[in-house]
Order: sequence, then structure tokens, then C-alpha cells
Amino acid sequence: MASNTTTLKGQPLDRPALDALLRRRMFYTPGFEIYGGSAGLFDMGPPGVTLQDNIINLWKKHFINEEAMLEVDTTVLTPYDVLKASGHCDKFTDWMCKDPKNGELLRADHWVKDTLKARLNANKLARGETVKEEEDPKKKKKAGKVAAQKLEDAVVQEYEEILARLDNYTGAELGELIIKYDMKNPATGAIPGEPKQFNLMFQTQIGPNSASVGFLRPETAQGQFLNFSKLLEFNNNAMPFASACVGRSYRNEISPRGGLLRVREFLMAEIEHFVDPQSGKKHARFDEVADVELVLLDRHTQQSGKTDVRKVSIGEAVKTGLVNNETLGYYLVRINKFMEKIGVDMSKLRFRQHMANEMAHYAADCWDCELLTSSGWVECVGCADRAAYDLEAHAKRTGSPLTVRERLETPIEEEKYEVEPNRKVFGPLFKKNAKAVENYLVALPQEELAALSKTLTAEGKISATVPEVGEVSIEASALSIELKKNIIHTREYFPHVIEPSFGIGRIMYSLIEHAYWTRAADDGGDEARGVLSFPPTIAPTKVLVVPLSNNPDFKPLTDKICRKLTSQGIWVRTDISGATIGKRYSRNDELGTPLGVTIDFQSVSDNTVTLRDRDSMTQVRADEDVIIEAVRSLVTGQKTWADIEKELPKFDGQKA
Amino acid sequence: MASNTTTLKGQPLDRPALDALLRRRMFYTPGFEIYGGSAGLFDMGPPGVTLQDNIINLWKKHFINEEAMLEVDTTVLTPYDVLKASGHCDKFTDWMCKDPKNGELLRADHWVKDTLKARLNANKLARGETVKEEEDPKKKKKAGKVAAQKLEDAVVQEYEEILARLDNYTGAELGELIIKYDMKNPATGAIPGEPKQFNLMFQTQIGPNSASVGFLRPETAQGQFLNFSKLLEFNNNAMPFASACVGRSYRNEISPRGGLLRVREFLMAEIEHFVDPQSGKKHARFDEVADVELVLLDRHTQQSGKTDVRKVSIGEAVKTGLVNNETLGYYLVRINKFMEKIGVDMSKLRFRQHMANEMAHYAADCWDCELLTSSGWVECVGCADRAAYDLEAHAKRTGSPLTVRERLETPIEEEKYEVEPNRKVFGPLFKKNAKAVENYLVALPQEELAALSKTLTAEGKISATVPEVGEVSIEASALSIELKKNIIHTREYFPHVIEPSFGIGRIMYSLIEHAYWTRAADDGGDEARGVLSFPPTIAPTKVLVVPLSNNPDFKPLTDKICRKLTSQGIWVRTDISGATIGKRYSRNDELGTPLGVTIDFQSVSDNTVTLRDRDSMTQVRADEDVIIEAVRSLVTGQKTWADIEKELPKFDGQKA
Repeated sequence: MASNTTTLKGQPLDRPALDALLRRRMFYTPGFEIYGGSAGLFDMGPPGVTLQDNIINLWKKHFINEEAMLEVDTTVLTPYDVLKASGHCDKFTDWMCKDPKNGELLRADHWVKDTLKARLNANKLARGETVKEEEDPKKKKKAGKVAAQKLEDAVVQEYEEILARLDNYTGAELGELIIKYDMKNPATGAIPGEPKQFNLMFQTQIGPNSASVGFLRPETAQGQFLNFSKLLEFNNNAMPFASACVGRSYRNEISPRGGLLRVREFLMAEIEHFVDPQSGKKHARFDEVADVELVLLDRHTQQSGKTDVRKVSIGEAVKTGLVNNETLGYYLVRINKFMEKIGVDMSKLRFRQHMANEMAHYAADCWDCELLTSSGWVECVGCADRAAYDLEAHAKRTGSPLTVRERLETPIEEEKYEVEPNRKVFGPLFKKNAKAVENYLVALPQEELAALSKTLTAEGKISATVPEVGEVSIEASALSIELKKNIIHTREYFPHVIEPSFGIGRIMYSLIEHAYWTRAADDGGDEARGVLSFPPTIAPTKVLVVPLSNNPDFKPLTDKICRKLTSQGIWVRTDISGATIGKRYSRNDELGTPLGVTIDFQSVSDNTVTLRDRDSMTQVRADEDVIIEAVRSLVTGQKTWADIEKELPKFDGQKA
Repeated sequence: MASNTTTLKGQPLDRPALDALLRRRMFYTPGFEIYGGSAGLFDMGPPGVTLQDNIINLWKKHFINEEAMLEVDTTVLTPYDVLKASGHCDKFTDWMCKDPKNGELLRADHWVKDTLKARLNANKLARGETVKEEEDPKKKKKAGKVAAQKLEDAVVQEYEEILARLDNYTGAELGELIIKYDMKNPATGAIPGEPKQFNLMFQTQIGPNSASVGFLRPETAQGQFLNFSKLLEFNNNAMPFASACVGRSYRNEISPRGGLLRVREFLMAEIEHFVDPQSGKKHARFDEVADVELVLLDRHTQQSGKTDVRKVSIGEAVKTGLVNNETLGYYLVRINKFMEKIGVDMSKLRFRQHMANEMAHYAADCWDCELLTSSGWVECVGCADRAAYDLEAHAKRTGSPLTVRERLETPIEEEKYEVEPNRKVFGPLFKKNAKAVENYLVALPQEELAALSKTLTAEGKISATVPEVGEVSIEASALSIELKKNIIHTREYFPHVIEPSFGIGRIMYSLIEHAYWTRAADDGGDEARGVLSFPPTIAPTKVLVVPLSNNPDFKPLTDKICRKLTSQGIWVRTDISGATIGKRYSRNDELGTPLGVTIDFQSVSDNTVTLRDRDSMTQVRADEDVIIEAVRSLVTGQKTWADIEKELPKFDGQKA
């Protein structure tokens, strides 16, 4: 349900104008364009890379550094066995339908969504309501293309309820919906075939041996789980702790779309927080955040077909069980804070709980941090409680104990049936099968051992069917099965995992939309022009240094200021073109450059320069080194423009 | 020819001890170890990731920021057509032999190298000379395993010459060497079969359509070339300029080995410097570096079977043609400076020129920056002149003009034969073939057009064989071919590319070896202990903050100092374990932490703390904030420990 999105200043968002700006300034660009493109693959240009770097650096400081996490950097290539054990070989799939006439491959849930949305829009048109140009069903291709047509109110409600529950349907249910609502492919007139599972992993061969199947990882999480024991040791065996990894992951989407929103190769930043499940998943710093209010959309609201949010303090949400535990709640607050720091419009943010069928195969509970964009609400961070699913799966497959061993303060007395063969009789009795028989008996559940023990005492022998050996009969002379007391000094457990998982490309794109607005002509420019109001900490280029004109007298001071800023690690751009100051600032508004330093004739004589704020267009003037220090304090986030305006004299001289 | 490498302090390098340290401190670890491992794939642990980040950040500052390069971040997944055009589908291969008995796959050049090196070592042993334990041929597997046996002096020389020229052999020549020198596989007694080409790219399928073949990129370069026109435009069409990309690349090695030195997935940092070939590849800032001396090993020396280096100023090297041009030379100096900045032992660095057959299929000249390690000289940076190979190949394949168009200051008059059909006659004459015939004629070389023009004038008609049309005869009434004068206002050319390409993993591993040494027991520790002397700018953790004991009185000041340092983005570790100060510093020596702050009883009363230098173990003492400022100036590289020792009072109190 894409809404009519607005810019930072409340103007209607003109998506084509923004797209043109992003291409013009090379934030990102479709990959392999001269080869006709390859869907779902994008390249970042210079401002895009630096914006991404700044987001990642802030992420690392906010999470890894401030929370003392253990960062790892693991490989993308992953052998088959790992992803078989994790469940991805079997369950990391989407439902795909094939058009029976032209063989086109369609993603089933998208097909249902696009068809119903188009019909709802067609209904609006037929009733004289307006729809956004990009949602006009007459202009759409494929599922979106339908003529204006009125729908009964009951049908509208039915469609809206299906859309609210969309992520909750199974493949078979999607297939039934397609038939029930006659969702023909307008291109062929045929109803798409039954949904089939398509595995979303990219497969390859590792090494020269063709039997060595591997995949590109679908998430960074598995690499962290596999290193769990080493990380625990690195952390001096102290629990809880979190690991983190920033890196690319891959998803072989059936039909990528939405620019950076659904791509085949993407940058993720994932945290795996390992916690003792018996601790109630408490978090040591939860009290610090308990009063923070979050905007929540819970599971029940959605299952009743609605999307109403409510604002609740996280302390309250955890107390009432709306959010499952403190650790999950703590991370929701930290995610919220991160989004605020990078400059997200907080009125376009909500946390949405996953519905039961929507959760990934490994998840026990999950909240998404969603940002509102012109493509609707976009899942930007998933915060899942994966329980012990993965560590148990890998431990089972490999025999490696991916557990925590903890010394008990008070040892526990435990009673247990134990099998003890009498080697002298047992060995010769079973010969080469002796080990197999013993292993089989030892691994039996306690209840069965209790029963066997009873039989052995009562009848003097037991019988059992041992796999790959067959029916065996064992007399009491060959073994004993007795209840023994043991003192347990250590407890061994699989930790549970709380996983905040960030899609950096989606966050970046949403942030760009949130930072975008247009400046009206009367603001000083020739025509309405785009501005990207990134915070100075995040903006790709921090300062534009412009001499008033290309008079050579300005060059030495321009060069000196650029050098001084660069040597402090501050990204600077200079523009010595002959264009007007206004035009030059306008280019940099599009790049999101927050600060401008102007060098004029007065500068050459008294070494003072002006500093301009992108958003307010106000200026201050001071000595070169004072201005450089002001820039430093702004781009590190230590001061705001309001602080600088209070400290330094205002300047109205050469208006940009 | 691995030499007996030494540590930073000249001690013999104990590789197993270093490996144990790197595992213990989790710098990096074999990937998928609990699944039995996957050769050539490694994960970085916490200190490894941060070390890598610091190297990358310094790289970006040194190259991208200081040289105003245009950074891009392109996708790893690459469609077939791109890598077909670039030549990688056909030429990015290694020679692989198959053992005819057990089917084992062997890399041909490694087989020759390992076999001959083992024989040379066996000869040394037979003559009573020593060889390094890890090179003892009796302890080796496969090709390395031979008994001690004397060789004739002439044979020794022959072997050494083959090894010096090893990278210069073709597959057929490697096959001949294997037969000539009877290089049997000791495991089977068989001579490996004829070398065959094995493509080193990882192949996959992009999207649900199995016909869409793609690869994981073997280098980041192609993504930069494909964006050339957009980058040129971003750069306001100004030449020369450089783009840069940091990202992972992939190489499906036949037999990965040497830890981080030969892996299947690796981080690269590549620069593509685009330059006008008619400029003589001059560089605007070459004068600034002309006097810098580099250690060079040229092509001719190697082809004569030797490895002697010489120290030459880059100005001299370019003047004499030893280094092909200024741009290549400028980058060699910048690479040299980068290595110095990150802490490479400059006595273990050389630039080696590629021999003719050794160069990649696209390269016109190439110099490697090699670092000496316990595995011999390791290629860490390749600096190649790729000429216009790639841009031309992609332009040819796609029809996109990946060229520079430059307005000529003085227009040029050009005479050219031009074909002009008389539409009214030509069209009806050839009907649907008209376009094909015209295109064929227009595309003919000028010499042929001159001849046809002459014939047409002399005989009143010409004949030609047009592909897919056949023999045609055209009379003078249907077309003219005449010499015409044109005024050319623009010049269009394919730029040439100078490419410095950095293997970050190799640099990182070599740096670790260069930074490693052991501190003797009498230096204060209990036993000889490992130290990694990374420069403060590069070290993963910058400061260890240690209270003298775990007395709770120390906690507030410890926490305050940690918070202050962290808020400045400085990575801090604290160790409040009960271990002695000496033990705690020893752990951090292994992590390469350059600075230590100690909080003692005096600190609690007067707010002074001590600051310790890892390498000299000397200490200074001052007020908390003075020490924090000293730390900041050291980790940003603004000051050295010698500066700090001059400024602040020395402290001898509690010796570590």
C-alpha cells in the first residue's frame, strides 16, 4: 500500500526527478548498462560509495565499538554441507509460477500483490479518485495493466485484507488465490501455473573438482555461527556477547525490482547476540533505554487485516510481552537511535512484527524496522530471535559442540541409567559389531533404558534391534544397565541468538528519499532545484570550497584551505569553474554537501572566509583556522549549525 | 627461492610460533573448520578485521583522497558477455595436470617448482648443508618428497635457471620440463599428464533462467572500465583521471596454499588511471617524486637467470626507459610510500618487472611490488600498463564509444575517400540489400577505396564481393567515391590505462611478518614472547587501559578514560583481570597494541596516569587529559613516541 510520499519539506515526492538527480550525480547506476544491463545489479558511483562508507563507519561505531562487539569478516563462498545443515538448501526459496503460454517466470506473491493493487487502483479511477502516476493501472505492464473498473465495497475490503496478510500465505494458498480471483497474465491471457519452489541461492563449484558444490552466502550469519566457539574463547568464555559482520550477501531473485530495494547482490551488516536462554534474555543495559518510545505495528493488528501503529515505551512493550524479551527490545531501541543518527525522517519509521507464516525458517520472533518510501514501507532491518536453531543444526551435522560450558556454583546431583558392557563377555559375543551394539544402547533415551534395566533384572536378558546389525539378545553376564548418581559441576547449553540484520542498500535508498526536497526558485536559484539534506556526519562530501571567481589571486588560499581540510581526513570538493556561486552551490546541494567555504577579495587581504549552511543558506565569517575548526566540529557531530551561528559573526555580504 | 627470513629485530623467524600467535589471537582462521575446512577460504577474527579496515582506510586516504580519484563500488556478479569480451573466458587460466593413476589434479608450474626445489634441498642435505625445517624434502608430501641426493654443479645451475624463469613458460613447455626431468608423482610413481587449461573463474547462473551464465569477477577492473563514460562525465570530461574500487574478487585456484597468500576469495584495491597515450603518459606531479629511489629487479636480469636488484631514482629509471613512463613511475613511488606508511620493513621490499610471457593477457608492461616473507618474495601489488586493451574490447563488443572526445585547439584538415550513393539509382538497384552494400563499401580501408575510386573513374564501374549478398557490380551513375577535404574539430581516442592493483590479504600477511619479533625473557616477561610492532595508525587496538589491580577504587577512572577515548573513535581495550601488569601487557603485545595507560593509586588521588610505549617499554606520566591528547596525536600519526618523550615527564615507577 504505497502512500503518497512527501519530501523532507512536505512537498509531494517527484520520484522521476529524484531518480534523474541520482543518475546525474552518479550516486548509483544500473550495472553492465552498456551490455544491456543485468537486473538487480547496481554499481555505486563516487558520492554513493562515500555515503555508504559513512553509514557503515557510523554503524561500526554505534554498534561494534560502543557495545564492544567482536567483529568478523567471513567468506562469501560457502560449501554445500553448511547451507544444507542451516536449512537454506531446502527452505531458502520463493514461490514461482510459469506462464503456460510464453514460459515467463513470475514470483507468485508479487503476482497476487500487483494484480490486486492494480484492480484497487482501477476502482479508484472508475470512482473519480486520483492515483499516483506511477501507479496508474493503464500505464503498467504485466499484472498491473487493467482498465478502470468499479469494484463492490465488499470486494475492496476482501482485496485489502489479502494484501495485509500477503506475507503469511503458503505457496498452495497463493496458487488458490490466483485461480479464485482469476489473475490472468494480460500478456498471454493465461492463468499462471501452480506455484513451485525456486531456491534463491547462487550455486557454483569450489575448486577443480566438479563434485564440490558451493553457494554464495545468503546471509553473513552462518559464518558467525561457525566461528562461535573461537569467538567465545576470544571473549574469555564470558557470556553474553555479540559478534558482527559487514559484507555482501546474495539472493538470486526471480524478478528484482525497485532499484536498490530488491537486488541480487547486497551489503548487509549483521549482529549475532548470543545469550543464555535461562537468563530470560535479560540485557544489562535495558534500564538505560526502558523509557524510549517506539512506533510498533504488532502481529495481531496485521492478522486482523489492519496496519494501525501505536507508540509504546520499550519497557512497557517487554513487560506486556508485546516484545518478547529485553535483549530484543534493547536492540530495537539501538536500531531506532542509529536511524535517527544517520538522518532518517523519524515520522517515516515503524517497527512491524512478523506474522507466524512470514518468519524465516529459523526465526522464533521477528520485528522489522521499516522506512516509508515512494515504494511503500520497506523492510530495512530485521531483528529476529533465531533461538538456538543454527548452532544446534551445525553441532548436529559436525559433532562440534557449539555450546557454552559454565561452572555451576552449586553442583547438581543427577540420576541416570548407564550402560556398562562386561568387556570380556560382550566383546567376543558381538565381535566386529560390538561397538555398534554398545553405541546403540548408550544412545537410547532414559525411559527405554529404564525399561531395559527392569527387563534385564527380571528376565536376566534383553533383546533389541540394532540398525545394520539386526536382532540381538544380550544376557546379564554381558552388560549391566543401572541407575547411577552423578555430581554435575558444569552446565552445558546452546545459547540463543538475537539477530539484528541491516540491509545497507535499502537503508541508503530510503535515507536518500527522506533527505530529499526541492528549493523553490525564489530561494535564490534560477529554478526549483533538488537538495539532499544529509547530516554533516553522513554526507559524502563535507565541504565545497569555492573562490568567488576564477581570478588567480584566489588560488593560493583555496589550495591551502583544501589541503588543511584534507589532511584532517575531511572530504572536500573544490569548484573553480566560472559558473556563478549560486550555480556552484546548487550542484553541491544535489550532492548533499552540507557546508560551503567561500573565498572572496576580503579573504585575500585578511584571511577571513565565509562558511555557508546548505539547509538554511545562512553564512558566518571568521578567520580561516576558526572556520576550519568549525567545519571539523560539525562533520564529527560535536556541534550543530545552531551552535556555530551563536559562536561566529553572521555574514550577509555576498548572498549565494 | 625462500630465504631464511628474519623478524623485525633480526631474529630467525619461527613461522610455527607466529602461526600459533595468529590463531591464538584470532587474526584469521581457516574457514568452515568445523566442517573439515575448505581450502583457500579464510575468516578474519576481531583484530584481523580491524587491521584490514585500518589498512583500507589509510589506502583510501593515501590514494583516493590525496589524489582526488573517483571511487566506485561495482558488483561481483558479472554476466558472461562482459568476461568473454575482456578475454577472461578464454585466457584467465592455469595449466593443470592430471595424475594418470589416482586422478589427482596438480598445478603444472607449482609441480615443476616444488619438484626442483626439493631436489636442490636434497642436494644441500647430501652435501652437509642445512635447509629450513619446513623445507626439509624428507618431511614433505607430494612433489617435495625426495631423499637426500647429490646433484652435479651443472644440474644445480640448470635447475636454478628454470626456477628464475618459471613464470615465463607456456603450458607445453611446462609439460616438456616435467617429462625431461622425470618429475614423477611420488604418491603414484606416475608422470603427471599433459598440462591442460583450467579456467579460474567461479561460474554461476544469474536469475531463474538457466541460460544466463555469469561469473564472480576475477578483478574489480572490469566494473571500472564499463563505467568509464559515466566517470568521464562525472569528472567534467577532464583527462587524465583515475577511478578506484575496493572489493572482493575470486579465483578458483587449483591448489590454494600459503595461508592468506593464495586464496580463492580475496580483497583487492584497484586503481585505473586513464591517460591520453599521445601525452607520452606524463604525470603532472612526477617532478615531486623524481628523486625518490626505488629497489628494482628488471626483466633482463631475470631472463639471464639472476635476481640482483639495484637502487635507482625513478627520474633516472624513466629517463633510461627502464620504467616505461612517468605515470607508471609516479605510481611505483606512491606504492612505495604507502608500504612505508603502513609499517612494511622497507629492506624487504622490491619492485620486480614482469617477463614477456609472464604478463597477463591484457598487459603491455608490468612491475610488481614484492615483499619478502618466509614464503619467499610475494607479489603484493601489480602495477600494469594495460594500454587500451579493455576499453577497446568492450567498445567493440557493445558498440558503446568508450572514448574521449577532445576539442582540437587547431582544427586539422583531413583528406579522405568518401562513398556517396546516388539514392535514386542505388536504392532500386539493390533493394533490400542496399544498406548492406553501402555499409560494406563505407567500412573499406582508405587504400581500397582509393583503388576503387580510380577504377570507377577509369572504367565507369566497379565490382565487389559483399558478405551475405555476393558479387555486385555498380556503375558510376549509382555512386561516387571521391577524395574529400574535411576540417576536423575534435579528436576521439581510447585512453590507455595504468593499473596499480593491490592484494590486501597478501599485504596484510606480509606486514604481520614484518612487524613480528620476540621479546627476550630478561626484558621483563617470564619467557620469550611475541610482539607485533604495527605503527599506531594501523594497529587494530590502539590503547590498553589497565588498572594496577582489580581494586574497585580504580574502576571510575578506568571507565572514564575508556569512554573519553572511545568517543574520539579510538579503539580501546581494557583488561581488569587479576593478572600481573606484565602478563596483561604481554597479551596486548601479541595483539600489536602500541600504547598502554596504567591507572594506579596515585592516579586516583591526582588524576595523573602513565602512558607506555609497546616497543621501547618506556613510560611517561601526566594528567589524564594530557595523556588522552598524546594518544590522539600518536594514533593519527601527527606525533611519534620520540615527540611524546620529549614533551612529557618520563616515569620509571611501576615497571611493567
